[in-house]
Amino acid sequence: MDRILLGHGSGGRLMHQLISEHIAPSFGMNKLADSAVLDATEIAGGRIAFTTDSYVVSPIFFPGGNIGDLAVNGTVNDLAMVGAKPLYLSSGFVIEEGFPMDSLRRILVSMASAADRAGVRIVTGDTKVVDRGKGDGIFINTAGIGVVRPGTSLGPDMIRPGDKVIISGSIGNHGVAVMSERNGISFDPPVLSDTVSLAGLVDVMLDFEKAIRMMRDPTRGGVATTLKEIALESGLTVTLNEESLPVPGNVRGACDMLGLDPLYIANEGILLAVVPAETAEGLVRVMRAHESGSGAAVIGEIGAPGQGRKGRVLLRTAVGGSRIIDMLAGEQLPRIC
Amino acid sequence: MDRILLGHGSGGRLMHQLISEHIAPSFGMNKLADSAVLDATEIAGGRIAFTTDSYVVSPIFFPGGNIGDLAVNGTVNDLAMVGAKPLYLSSGFVIEEGFPMDSLRRILVSMASAADRAGVRIVTGDTKVVDRGKGDGIFINTAGIGVVRPGTSLGPDMIRPGDKVIISGSIGNHGVAVMSERNGISFDPPVLSDTVSLAGLVDVMLDFEKAIRMMRDPTRGGVATTLKEIALESGLTVTLNEESLPVPGNVRGACDMLGLDPLYIANEGILLAVVPAETAEGLVRVMRAHESGSGAAVIGEIGAPGQGRKGRVLLRTAVGGSRIIDMLAGEQLPRIC
Repeated sequence: MDRILLGHGSGGRLMHQLISEHIAPSFGMNKLADSAVLDATEIAGGRIAFTTDSYVVSPIFFPGGNIGDLAVNGTVNDLAMVGAKPLYLSSGFVIEEGFPMDSLRRILVSMASAADRAGVRIVTGDTKVVDRGKGDGIFINTAGIGVVRPGTSLGPDMIRPGDKVIISGSIGNHGVAVMSERNGISFDPPVLSDTVSLAGLVDVMLDFEKAIRMMRDPTRGGVATTLKEIALESGLTVTLNEESLPVPGNVRGACDMLGLDPLYIANEGILLAVVPAETAEGLVRVMRAHESGSGAAVIGEIGAPGQGRKGRVLLRTAVGGSRIIDMLAGEQLPRIC
Repeated sequence: MDRILLGHGSGGRLMHQLISEHIAPSFGMNKLADSAVLDATEIAGGRIAFTTDSYVVSPIFFPGGNIGDLAVNGTVNDLAMVGAKPLYLSSGFVIEEGFPMDSLRRILVSMASAADRAGVRIVTGDTKVVDRGKGDGIFINTAGIGVVRPGTSLGPDMIRPGDKVIISGSIGNHGVAVMSERNGISFDPPVLSDTVSLAGLVDVMLDFEKAIRMMRDPTRGGVATTLKEIALESGLTVTLNEESLPVPGNVRGACDMLGLDPLYIANEGILLAVVPAETAEGLVRVMRAHESGSGAAVIGEIGAPGQGRKGRVLLRTAVGGSRIIDMLAGEQLPRIC
């Protein structure tokens, strides 16, 4: 069988074959029940983090990754952003009839290896098949459970004027990689998606500074939208220094060509952190020593709210002016993750 | 805005509006972060259950329910089947551009009320939008976390020859309700989906008998496929008494008309349990006293494996013969949940 049939989703023999021959072995699941039953000793009455994301990226294979590792890393990162150690993932597939079995296998391999690298286990799953023309190849949902580090308290209400804003690496890579593949163009050097687990980086950050105020990964909507969320949720002003924003040359070139603003482009392997001013430089140092944080930099600071204008984001430009940054409006980049 | 736009999934202002004005208030979420951070006192180092299901039922509204309550009850039931008390759900929407906002609102209301009745909270979510023609209205993924009852040990390896098989209610209702809506036919009295949470019923069952061997809800593939799974996983023989199978008259009539076998039709509000013979009658009594178990009955028993034939299911017919039951083959009922 080299293509997915409707029967692969009907609950019968074909589905059992698909799961027992392909999906379960990929993820090392050996007991298939309605739910996975998991040891929770590590949680031990503390706090858990729980998150979900559906991935509908188009195309499903792009330079630097595919929908599979994206689905694992994205959910792992959502757990890491609240200070949790990711433990378990679920995976729910919605596959279009006729989808090549080979592509499914490639995706499963990518998911398994991303899970391995992130130190999580994919423990439960589901497969549905929709008729031809009622889906688009494959959509993947992953949900994740993590255990929140004792003693961490992250959130917009922890942010104070004077805090610094740190980024862990260069921006725009994921969105440009997907858009270039979608439009059949390539760049030299090629722009690769930055999809990666940030769990290890977050570990070293919280080891160094427990009092990190807040972290968020600038995925859909990009750095601009995420900073606007942080500004709105804290009620404070975020000032961003354009000059310190790490935009690689090939990303900038691609953005010029495609008419995109790197500030609004989705990233899948970087984080923004608001941190106490006195530890900002130290944090950047430990981040740079980690493979996922080699491009870390301070890119801005938190200020008091403007008069009657809570939640603003200002971009201080290279020539000394400043402009107001808002959320992504409209649909600049649909189906980017 | 009365229809979903691509921009509702792009991470920017429209998405924030959709979430903050519609989705979050429906589910009583007040803090939107990458992950929900949840109290885990109830888990306290024991065992958790974790499950996921994507729902792609077509049509999305059908007699007795819609994709929303189905998505909540289905995942709640997967948790209940392993002896867990359901605590938290996630919801991931994949919506097709142009989907009516009114339909989304109806679905959100159904989800919230199903969660209420099941005693779970929907604590985290995600919304993606795909372009027109690349989806089919709405697909919903729900993942769920529950805490496993201390002292329960359910699974096919607990089953012994002599055990009885119990069903909690009549079969075929959900599948026939969806198929009749899909085909534009109705029955008198109408066949309604049985979608409902089984968590309360499982509670009274485990209160009465901790040593229940195994439970499973016969959804996709129906009672036949689920019993075949139980037979294969335990390596024993399941004998089903055709006469004791509760098939309502209107379901039987509909099946005759649509050319379906009730044994293979999906159910969304009943469970199968394998139980020690000596408590089977007592269990049926306490189940019948519960609103979700009023049709409970003993429908079969477990026998030793046949010579060289592990994992068989035999149907003992009304006239005294018997035939072998296998899993659903092919695609009798696609997109039933």
